[in-house]
Amino acid sequence: MPTINVQFFEGRTTEQKRDYAKALTEATVKALGCSPASVDIIFHDVKKSDWATGGELWSDKG
Amino acid sequence: MPTINVQFFEGRTTEQKRDYAKALTEATVKALGCSPASVDIIFHDVKKSDWATGGELWSDKG
Amino acid sequence: MPTINVQFFEGRTTEQKRDYAKALTEATVKALGCSPASVDIIFHDVKKSDWATGGELWSDKG
Amino acid sequence: MPTINVQFFEGRTTEQKRDYAKALTEATVKALGCSPASVDIIFHDVKKSDWATGGELWSDKG
Amino acid sequence: MPTINVQFFEGRTTEQKRDYAKALTEATVKALGCSPASVDIIFHDVKKSDWATGGELWSDKG
Amino acid sequence: MPTINVQFFEGRTTEQKRDYAKALTEATVKALGCSPASVDIIFHDVKKSDWATGGELWSDKG
Repeated sequence: MPTINVQFFEGRTTEQKRDYAKALTEATVKALGCSPASVDIIFHDVKKSDWATGGELWSDKG
Repeated sequence: MPTINVQFFEGRTTEQKRDYAKALTEATVKALGCSPASVDIIFHDVKKSDWATGGELWSDKG
Repeated sequence: MPTINVQFFEGRTTEQKRDYAKALTEATVKALGCSPASVDIIFHDVKKSDWATGGELWSDKG
Repeated sequence: MPTINVQFFEGRTTEQKRDYAKALTEATVKALGCSPASVDIIFHDVKKSDWATGGELWSDKG
Repeated sequence: MPTINVQFFEGRTTEQKRDYAKALTEATVKALGCSPASVDIIFHDVKKSDWATGGELWSDKG
Repeated sequence: MPTINVQFFEGRTTEQKRDYAKALTEATVKALGCSPASVDIIFHDVKKSDWATGGELWSDKG
């Protein structure tokens, strides 16, 4: 507790995820007053052909 | 807003997802009266070996 | 299969959800060629104070 | 894009969620290089009687 | 790790959730060989008017 | 109904998932008194580089 699920486009490097996980955890600990060990973060790489906004797949957007 | 997560078996083509995303968005706009741009849809391809119904994986169903 | 989770702001009536569930199911059956009985839809009412875009809660947007 | 779903115990105030949403968005923008407007955050209040760790509901933990 | 999200109709008592959480955790530990402490379970009570199968809300099924 | 989403580290074999799905379904039927056919389980393989606890990716833990 808490558990954070992040959905974003694929393409982030492990380096970026490492830094992002650290930053999200720090923001969570500071805002909620919980311990870092209690923070779980799960990243979900989503293909642009699997995400649509406004009825159009992002892989089709110019 | 709204955000729609769809889980289905893998195997749909991008063509099918494109049409499906459009249809889901139109149904959403019509039913909820929101703008198309506010509708996010995320597709999740699930392997038949990762989905069980009745205690049996779909990859095992005859 | 498929399972559709819809997150939107609270405030929709059961009447609206009834019509929307029917429309989503029809769009799904037509696009994927599955049976209506295989389509599960779960609605999630989200308070405007539980959804932020651009770092601002929707309950704070003017 | 990205969409962040946060599950935590109920009891946070709107004030806390407001600050937390802002901090999460800033951390996301900095780490991913996306625009603030593209960041959606959805908070899920979970009752301690609906969350178990180690087979025990948190409402039962002493 | 692992994290298990369970969606079911509202109406289960805390007593039932307590027993169910214990049983799910035991099944998980036995099947995956992980420690009980690593198993998180989150229950989601869903109203019958928020779940549709076959295009019909469960609250409308006779 | 019910629908169970399980997130765990990738690496489980289909054999393990088959047994685990059966055990989860049995535990669910016994605890909730529902029919086996009504139980859906979806497994989500998560890479250790996509899951962080305590601000550290599991792929980085020694």
